[in-house]
Amino acid sequence: MPHQLFVSPGACSLGAHVVVRELDLPVEIVLSPPRDPASRIHSVNPLGRVPALLLDDGTVITENSAILPFLADLAPGTPLFAPAGSAERGLIQSWIGYLSAEIHAGGFRQVNRPERYAEDPASHDGVRAQSKRTLHAAVAHIDRHLAGRQWLVGERFTIADAYLGVFVRWIARLGPEFAAFEQLNRFREAYLARPAVQAALAAEG
Amino acid sequence: MPHQLFVSPGACSLGAHVVVRELDLPVEIVLSPPRDPASRIHSVNPLGRVPALLLDDGTVITENSAILPFLADLAPGTPLFAPAGSAERGLIQSWIGYLSAEIHAGGFRQVNRPERYAEDPASHDGVRAQSKRTLHAAVAHIDRHLAGRQWLVGERFTIADAYLGVFVRWIARLGPEFAAFEQLNRFREAYLARPAVQAALAAEG
Repeated sequence: MPHQLFVSPGACSLGAHVVVRELDLPVEIVLSPPRDPASRIHSVNPLGRVPALLLDDGTVITENSAILPFLADLAPGTPLFAPAGSAERGLIQSWIGYLSAEIHAGGFRQVNRPERYAEDPASHDGVRAQSKRTLHAAVAHIDRHLAGRQWLVGERFTIADAYLGVFVRWIARLGPEFAAFEQLNRFREAYLARPAVQAALAAEG
Repeated sequence: MPHQLFVSPGACSLGAHVVVRELDLPVEIVLSPPRDPASRIHSVNPLGRVPALLLDDGTVITENSAILPFLADLAPGTPLFAPAGSAERGLIQSWIGYLSAEIHAGGFRQVNRPERYAEDPASHDGVRAQSKRTLHAAVAHIDRHLAGRQWLVGERFTIADAYLGVFVRWIARLGPEFAAFEQLNRFREAYLARPAVQAALAAEG
């Protein structure tokens, strides 16, 4: 049985899905409907979350910051990553870490799920508004970095860009105050023009 | 000039500091006082955050999920990590990702800095309380995993454990509802007994 990557439409698993298609890896994509208690994902990942990568030996790898490098290492020498021990690999993993911690877990999650961070429903609008400001500042850091750069690291598309692509799509829907990030808007166009991205989006429906 | 690792006493940079000492790496530890606008950290990392790793070629690597594997890769073959492409490396990086995203950025940060996620000071106590519940559930997942295991992955101390050590110390101060995690309490004792941990804590003062 090949490795299986569990993804859900609209979720952050799109990044890993794109990497599988960019590298044409022998990994089966398993579509897992979001928030479905009957989904097989619950027997693979006890937290019920995507992405989850079920290896052919039964090992389950979770977290984008682990799955993205693992997938790239299935294609040693790929330009999507860099060799262990290189500064470039460190930089690619830095941006993945930033996206996971500052943009997703410490940004979008509070905007999208304020009930996890404030019990009183009366305060949820305030949590959403302030979390959007915190997220805006975190996104601005990426926009500044991209000035004069096509991609995040090393002037080529890497697994960090495959992951950033998830968030540039989400950011576009956050409202007018997120519309003026010029570098991110340019990045979004270049990202969406890639055949692997288009194939992944089509497969997720 | 050797690589330089910027750390602050009490911060999550302790994990990387411990790895430098466990592996006796030729990396200079630079103590950076927390929240000091005059600190050199601001010229190294524009976000002003530790840990930051300044390489001898001027590259700056940030984020624990990048710095910890980079440091371990300076000692190829170390038992603290695993080779690129191995399932074990994926698991170690999974736990580092979980700690960074779920425990730190999506857990402790809302407990410690509710003002970033709710503008109205009147709602901060409610944010702190609910965020503690969210964090409690995230910590319980680790405690369950550790049942029957000495360390997170592979029955040996790895960079994931060096990072978990940061949070078991913080968890101990969160209040009585966090005191009953039996596996984590056992882990804390084993962690604090390591000479490299004791040396790092002594150096941070």
